[in-house]
Amino acid sequence: MRFKFPLMAIGLEVAMIVLFGLFVQYEKDQNIRQQLSSSNSTDVDRFSELYPLFQDVHVMIFVGFGFLMTFLKKYGFSSVGINLLIAALGLQWGTLMQGILHSHGHKIHIGIKNFIWDLHYSLMYSFSFTATVLISFGAVLGKISPLQMLIMTIIEIAVFAGNEHLVAEIFMATDIGASMTIHAFGAYFGLAVAGVLYRPGLRRGHDNEESVYHSDLFAMIGTLFLWIFWPSFNSAIAEAGDKEYRAVVNTYFSLAACVLTAYAFSSLVEHRGKLDMVHIQNATLAGGVAVGTCADMAIHPYVSMIIGSIAGMVSVLGFKFLTPVFATKLRIHDTCGVHNLHGLPGVVGGLAGIVAVALGASDTSTPVMQAAALGSSIGAALAGGLITGLILKLPIWGQPSDQNCYDDSVFWEVPRWREHDHHFHEHHGHNHLEPEL
Amino acid sequence: MRFKFPLMAIGLEVAMIVLFGLFVQYEKDQNIRQQLSSSNSTDVDRFSELYPLFQDVHVMIFVGFGFLMTFLKKYGFSSVGINLLIAALGLQWGTLMQGILHSHGHKIHIGIKNFIWDLHYSLMYSFSFTATVLISFGAVLGKISPLQMLIMTIIEIAVFAGNEHLVAEIFMATDIGASMTIHAFGAYFGLAVAGVLYRPGLRRGHDNEESVYHSDLFAMIGTLFLWIFWPSFNSAIAEAGDKEYRAVVNTYFSLAACVLTAYAFSSLVEHRGKLDMVHIQNATLAGGVAVGTCADMAIHPYVSMIIGSIAGMVSVLGFKFLTPVFATKLRIHDTCGVHNLHGLPGVVGGLAGIVAVALGASDTSTPVMQAAALGSSIGAALAGGLITGLILKLPIWGQPSDQNCYDDSVFWEVPRWREHDHHFHEHHGHNHLEPEL
Amino acid sequence: MRFKFPLMAIGLEVAMIVLFGLFVQYEKDQNIRQQLSSSNSTDVDRFSELYPLFQDVHVMIFVGFGFLMTFLKKYGFSSVGINLLIAALGLQWGTLMQGILHSHGHKIHIGIKNFIWDLHYSLMYSFSFTATVLISFGAVLGKISPLQMLIMTIIEIAVFAGNEHLVAEIFMATDIGASMTIHAFGAYFGLAVAGVLYRPGLRRGHDNEESVYHSDLFAMIGTLFLWIFWPSFNSAIAEAGDKEYRAVVNTYFSLAACVLTAYAFSSLVEHRGKLDMVHIQNATLAGGVAVGTCADMAIHPYVSMIIGSIAGMVSVLGFKFLTPVFATKLRIHDTCGVHNLHGLPGVVGGLAGIVAVALGASDTSTPVMQAAALGSSIGAALAGGLITGLILKLPIWGQPSDQNCYDDSVFWEVPRWREHDHHFHEHHGHNHLEPEL
Repeated sequence: MRFKFPLMAIGLEVAMIVLFGLFVQYEKDQNIRQQLSSSNSTDVDRFSELYPLFQDVHVMIFVGFGFLMTFLKKYGFSSVGINLLIAALGLQWGTLMQGILHSHGHKIHIGIKNFIWDLHYSLMYSFSFTATVLISFGAVLGKISPLQMLIMTIIEIAVFAGNEHLVAEIFMATDIGASMTIHAFGAYFGLAVAGVLYRPGLRRGHDNEESVYHSDLFAMIGTLFLWIFWPSFNSAIAEAGDKEYRAVVNTYFSLAACVLTAYAFSSLVEHRGKLDMVHIQNATLAGGVAVGTCADMAIHPYVSMIIGSIAGMVSVLGFKFLTPVFATKLRIHDTCGVHNLHGLPGVVGGLAGIVAVALGASDTSTPVMQAAALGSSIGAALAGGLITGLILKLPIWGQPSDQNCYDDSVFWEVPRWREHDHHFHEHHGHNHLEPEL
Repeated sequence: MRFKFPLMAIGLEVAMIVLFGLFVQYEKDQNIRQQLSSSNSTDVDRFSELYPLFQDVHVMIFVGFGFLMTFLKKYGFSSVGINLLIAALGLQWGTLMQGILHSHGHKIHIGIKNFIWDLHYSLMYSFSFTATVLISFGAVLGKISPLQMLIMTIIEIAVFAGNEHLVAEIFMATDIGASMTIHAFGAYFGLAVAGVLYRPGLRRGHDNEESVYHSDLFAMIGTLFLWIFWPSFNSAIAEAGDKEYRAVVNTYFSLAACVLTAYAFSSLVEHRGKLDMVHIQNATLAGGVAVGTCADMAIHPYVSMIIGSIAGMVSVLGFKFLTPVFATKLRIHDTCGVHNLHGLPGVVGGLAGIVAVALGASDTSTPVMQAAALGSSIGAALAGGLITGLILKLPIWGQPSDQNCYDDSVFWEVPRWREHDHHFHEHHGHNHLEPEL
Repeated sequence: MRFKFPLMAIGLEVAMIVLFGLFVQYEKDQNIRQQLSSSNSTDVDRFSELYPLFQDVHVMIFVGFGFLMTFLKKYGFSSVGINLLIAALGLQWGTLMQGILHSHGHKIHIGIKNFIWDLHYSLMYSFSFTATVLISFGAVLGKISPLQMLIMTIIEIAVFAGNEHLVAEIFMATDIGASMTIHAFGAYFGLAVAGVLYRPGLRRGHDNEESVYHSDLFAMIGTLFLWIFWPSFNSAIAEAGDKEYRAVVNTYFSLAACVLTAYAFSSLVEHRGKLDMVHIQNATLAGGVAVGTCADMAIHPYVSMIIGSIAGMVSVLGFKFLTPVFATKLRIHDTCGVHNLHGLPGVVGGLAGIVAVALGASDTSTPVMQAAALGSSIGAALAGGLITGLILKLPIWGQPSDQNCYDDSVFWEVPRWREHDHHFHEHHGHNHLEPEL
């Protein structure tokens, strides 16, 4: 294990550099630009229009996902650190993958139609790849090694690219905010991996698998930045004009409605009516996931709010009732509850898309094709996740032992002082009774 | 109490959906658009111009206000969580309120003049409503229940809308950065509520009403994002061109100057010349509040800096000398010191506006009308706050007992481990029963 | 000491106001605007194009730099607080300095060529000044007083302006992302100051000079926002169009590659292959520094990735092997390791620029002039830093004693409870005198 991780990381980066050297270039070729007869001034406008969206999604990927997962008391370094590592690898590998899908044998330009739009197009695609892997990461958080995550990143992005191609090019289905292709796919892929890697030794839980007060506040940094920029995510690849406008408005009101029902149901299902931070951190975002597929359609703001309300409710109920059943009966342990934030709301989004298309809210797809896209996304995710899980199960990747799960100190130099260690220390040192032990 | 909060939240969301279904639609009607003869391309440009501002203000509302209030050692979940809840409700209710004010009986379009600008216009208005409620929230932080906050949100936004209409349409006063209509209004509304809900039992303070080291750092996340994006807030509804440019520049230099005087006076008034985190978290923002009314006027950058310098000084002096007097003599306990961050600097801003208009820096208003706007904002806030306070005083809203103030554990499931519990425990060396256990 | 800091802060702010009153005005003069024959509509477009970049860099300066330095367990208030103070002063003083350099004797307009571009141009310059001081701040963090930082800010910005003038106007060198003029300059200036202020009493380290678990997570907030917005920084003053596009793409891929090698080498050089948070917080950003000089050149994405890979590696090796040698042999103690994040990668960037220009990637400069710019930046920084260090060594600035280093409580009112105090206390089990109590 001592050298496997660094050598794998260096090897992957060298491979990326070689592949970029062979296949990727700026979209600056005069010939291409002239063919497209794109005037420079339009490109500049388009760049300045898209760059803020690009950065919003950046914040979601690095700060949003990274901090959302810091809720575990001893796993903050890994949550935010491995998130950064995966994202950096995923952006490079994703750029290559989308290029392969779209280049039709030519050199992969960073961009296809003209040099500015395609910066965006290209990078948005790599974001999609990356976001998907980060969602799956949530299901196995604390239970796998950084080396295993590198392997999973490479495989999952390839499977994602295949499904994305199927959905967009073969089924011609519409999924602007990627409820199906990113959220449902990422969740079910992660669940399948988690199922294969199930640890019977931890079926009664683990001392480290809980939050402390401050770790829950760090996680809220992630929640809030995800909430704020979700309209940018859902509208990022929408057509400029009406569709982009609607993608923003629908996502915005779906999220707002979702917050109210998430709070209400969190209080309803909890002991003595108290709110649960896990629900607030996650279920308040379900409205962004669920409105994804039909975000750019003319579905009326109040319909977005209905979708968001349902998503907030379903997500909280999933956390309360489904996650424990998954862990005990199905032997699938989902650390962050990605099934409740991405899986179920993603399916809600896919179903809403089928209904919306059936009702004529979009004329570019059919209900059958939408259903095929939903089925394909879940099926490909489960199949890909199973295979990935089996590969990760090989005893050569430095997977942590049951006892060392959810603990940064296996992979990180940790400061001598950590509040919970201190506590733990004390507990064993003398008979100080702390409530949590 | 067990079901009041969730049922109220669900009821409000259902009401919002029904009202949106009845009254709100996209600004996409072909007829309207043709009447306005707005070309599509212009709309797209305008959207891409406004969307980043829209997101900046988003960050202020959710991250800025939310984290600014996390300074209390045991009230971080509520600060950032109830902030999110209020904002989500406020954005929906605010959209309806501004529509009622501006629609003149027609269906409320999301937007009036053309479909893109008005997305912004409309949403900026809902932000104003929301920001105002969040300011008032600071005055009663830790002392009221989530259910009470829902009630207060609904009432305060209605009163705000009335005053806003008066200031903008009747007095025709100018207040681009809303020193008077948002900041002074929000502060005095909150103070009036706090006065009615005064708790004599806490006149000697409360053990929980203090920060710990990390909670002060969390609060600085809020401070910095508010500081950074304040120029976006003050310029968000300014006319494009010179006025928008000046609103950015004036706000920017007022804030920069304000930081220097806030640090200087914090050191001057404190024991042994040390800096006080409360001042740094709040008074460094007073320059953004105080320059609000005349932010878009041609007042010269150095005048903005004078306004900012005064605001930083006044704010620190308010924290040091006025807040204790309010709490003891006036029986108004202001948890976050909103009077010092929003009240006093808002009045400074209103007065600066009167002077600036008198000196001819704006030809769209008169000093008398500016004074009327300032008086109306404070008067409406006090009256509205008193009534709201009386309603909230009804013993049916689950208001926490004196002992349970400033403690998340009344309304939240709190992780078993919290640093200060541990501390408190040890410090007092006895079995102190925490409410959540 | 009681009054020196506040009086200096007030005095500086008064001076700024007077100088702004004398020399700075809006770029709104009709004559100037007509001379430039700039149409209003173009200005508006340019403003909306630049404002998001302006705000991105804002986030880097205030949140990025501020939180990156909060890693020390007892110095978070000062890190984020003094960062804010320096930035606020630096932005004002920088605006004056760049005006002096560019105004050629006329009144300093906020802007030169036309009123919108120049808002940006002008403010970007003040950002450069400010960023440079903040880099140097990292080298002396915890060892100097707020008063000393005010002095250093004033002097360093003046020296920076001189060198910047030399590099841009005399050598006509290209350095779009400022690898040399900001990063190398800031690092070597700070190291020179740190060398003069060397404390032999701390050669064996200091109990406070370490992180705790949560302080390392706060620092990651800084790291991530810096990472995300680095493409905005490197492209902020690039020419719109191809150059701006390339500055974004090259920075982006350099950063992504840098992350992989930083993780790999952190694991390689550490005991038992564990990752070190110091490396992850800092070395993952080295790719943004190193690609700065040639970010806008047509160097191919894979070359950016090579530059980034080298920077990540060099930075980690610097932290591991060079920083200890500096502290013991050269008697230069670099608190944040700015030499490894800004110094070495800045030199790598300067060298990459020489090679790129030699290979014809830019026709606006020559290798000799690039080398002169690199030499001048390092030379001016060392000379300026030495002189500044000597001035700061005068025993009138309230420099903290050795024992009080890295401790907020010398300059701040600190909450009664701090986790590490508690820990320390307990751990040693005796009446340890905390300075603030």
